[in-house]
Amino acid sequence: MKGAVIYGARDVRFEERDTPRVIEPTDAVIRTAATCICGSDLWSYRGINKITAPTPFGHEYCGIVEEVGRAVSTVTPGQFVIGSFFASDNSCPHCAAGYQSACQHRELVGGAQAPLLRVPLADGTLVATPEVPPPELIPSLLALSDVMGTGWFAADAANVKPGRTALVVGDGAVGLLAVLSAKQMGAERVIAMSGHPSRQKLARDFGATDIVAERGDEGVARIKEMTNGVGADSVLECVGTADSMKQAIQAARPGGYVGYVGVPHGVTLKADELFYTHVRLHGGPAPVRRYLPMLIELVWNRKIDPGRVFDLTLPLEQVAEGYRAMDERRAIKTLLRI
Amino acid sequence: MKGAVIYGARDVRFEERDTPRVIEPTDAVIRTAATCICGSDLWSYRGINKITAPTPFGHEYCGIVEEVGRAVSTVTPGQFVIGSFFASDNSCPHCAAGYQSACQHRELVGGAQAPLLRVPLADGTLVATPEVPPPELIPSLLALSDVMGTGWFAADAANVKPGRTALVVGDGAVGLLAVLSAKQMGAERVIAMSGHPSRQKLARDFGATDIVAERGDEGVARIKEMTNGVGADSVLECVGTADSMKQAIQAARPGGYVGYVGVPHGVTLKADELFYTHVRLHGGPAPVRRYLPMLIELVWNRKIDPGRVFDLTLPLEQVAEGYRAMDERRAIKTLLRI
Repeated sequence: MKGAVIYGARDVRFEERDTPRVIEPTDAVIRTAATCICGSDLWSYRGINKITAPTPFGHEYCGIVEEVGRAVSTVTPGQFVIGSFFASDNSCPHCAAGYQSACQHRELVGGAQAPLLRVPLADGTLVATPEVPPPELIPSLLALSDVMGTGWFAADAANVKPGRTALVVGDGAVGLLAVLSAKQMGAERVIAMSGHPSRQKLARDFGATDIVAERGDEGVARIKEMTNGVGADSVLECVGTADSMKQAIQAARPGGYVGYVGVPHGVTLKADELFYTHVRLHGGPAPVRRYLPMLIELVWNRKIDPGRVFDLTLPLEQVAEGYRAMDERRAIKTLLRI
Repeated sequence: MKGAVIYGARDVRFEERDTPRVIEPTDAVIRTAATCICGSDLWSYRGINKITAPTPFGHEYCGIVEEVGRAVSTVTPGQFVIGSFFASDNSCPHCAAGYQSACQHRELVGGAQAPLLRVPLADGTLVATPEVPPPELIPSLLALSDVMGTGWFAADAANVKPGRTALVVGDGAVGLLAVLSAKQMGAERVIAMSGHPSRQKLARDFGATDIVAERGDEGVARIKEMTNGVGADSVLECVGTADSMKQAIQAARPGGYVGYVGVPHGVTLKADELFYTHVRLHGGPAPVRRYLPMLIELVWNRKIDPGRVFDLTLPLEQVAEGYRAMDERRAIKTLLRI
């Protein structure tokens, strides 16, 4: 089997790898229907997160169950399934509270950019679709494996409610799907911060009512102006840099919510400054598993089409070009055909 | 009129000051029934917050309205009133959302350690008791001006709910009243962190079900052990140091709440560490005004007795000794008789 392996900064190779197989009795092996490239992996791709040894790459997946371990009882070979990048038992206290990405037995799923993938804790991790989906649904179902659930968590953590104002910081795939999520949750006003015409257009298609192209202090001033000096009720932070975090916190109203899902890199928050903003902060790796059943239903019934964030499709063997395109911001998100 | 003035580190004097009077038409002047010393002012007393000029000191007060400006309509001379350290108009969007301490027209009330006090924005700031209270209620009513409302906000921000576990970090007056607040809100288990016998006792009297004397990593390990490895649902951070904040965040469960009301000093939070805890963070200067009507009712009906945090009573002229006693932790909180 050939799959993607990262060797170091800007060095992703498509090469022979061990064929995944059931190791633990709770494992499943799935034949991936499609996979994709995550913005969060650009931190490794750009050399900011260090790679110490060649590592199978990718963590977003959906596909047909090929084989299950003897302890697996809820999914069976032949079913089409989706799972999160964090395998979870879905039964520990953290899972029961809805934080499957903090599962006491969680394991990272890695090496998804390949035709076959081992998924640990299959019963707790994988959710089957009603039947094997038609090909046109694959992109949207694949998006549920991470990016859509992450955008949804941003909106959930930011307490988006009907009639309120939601502000989305970040116009990457997560940010765009945070726009879609905020719209689904009934926000009256969804403001997307983006200076990039094609992303602005997709944001509008997903439900953004306003676009703000300004950034930093200017961007914050613009948001304050648009909200009568008050600030946004909910801010969805989908980047993870010091600038984006600062912008998110400053643009929220006192008592407002900041949901942050961009993996923070080198961000320190001064607690005294945070204190005087009265902002509520909640985030972390999205508990994608919590939302899977509900999001699968929305996609299945054609209520949402998160797969539209894939604006570049390549065959898996061109995975390296897929990373380059995202690194250079030529693509919002790359889907890899198997 | 003589009142307290801070000149610098450990230099509080009782000396002649200008007699407060109505300046703005929205002002009131009140004759204080009692005043007290706040733990947050120890940052100035200890020289950590710099004092650049002699400053009238103290911000907790209750008493009889002496005079009001011509624009004041809701309080009248002769009424007994309580107000917060932040004067607020109680009508701007931030006030309407319950964040009066972020009022768009807020003003700090200063110089309360004196027989007379000017309170700006009297209509929005002051709340009258049903009648002039009997003397034995004065300490508890005075506590509502800051310390009790701040403890209540810690519990509110930490989303304390019936049946849940609340952990209080800090055994100062705010921490002890956070215990009382968590109990009032129905927490099944209220764990107070304190190594100090007299404070432990008061915590138990206020409703603590468990006391943990360990601190730092050991304290966190103890909390995890007591909660089957899960962590506390709600953590009430009532100190404001880097250590207490760290302890609070680490002791909360994923998806749990940390309400922080100790004014942070030199605390920086690493966003990536916070991210992986999945903790919800909310705090700030307490919107005391929001809680005043409800807390006055609880005190008036003898349901709560927050005045018990005053374990030292001195005449106002001994204000300097009051600060010394709190600085040296000989007293939890000092009440100053006028």
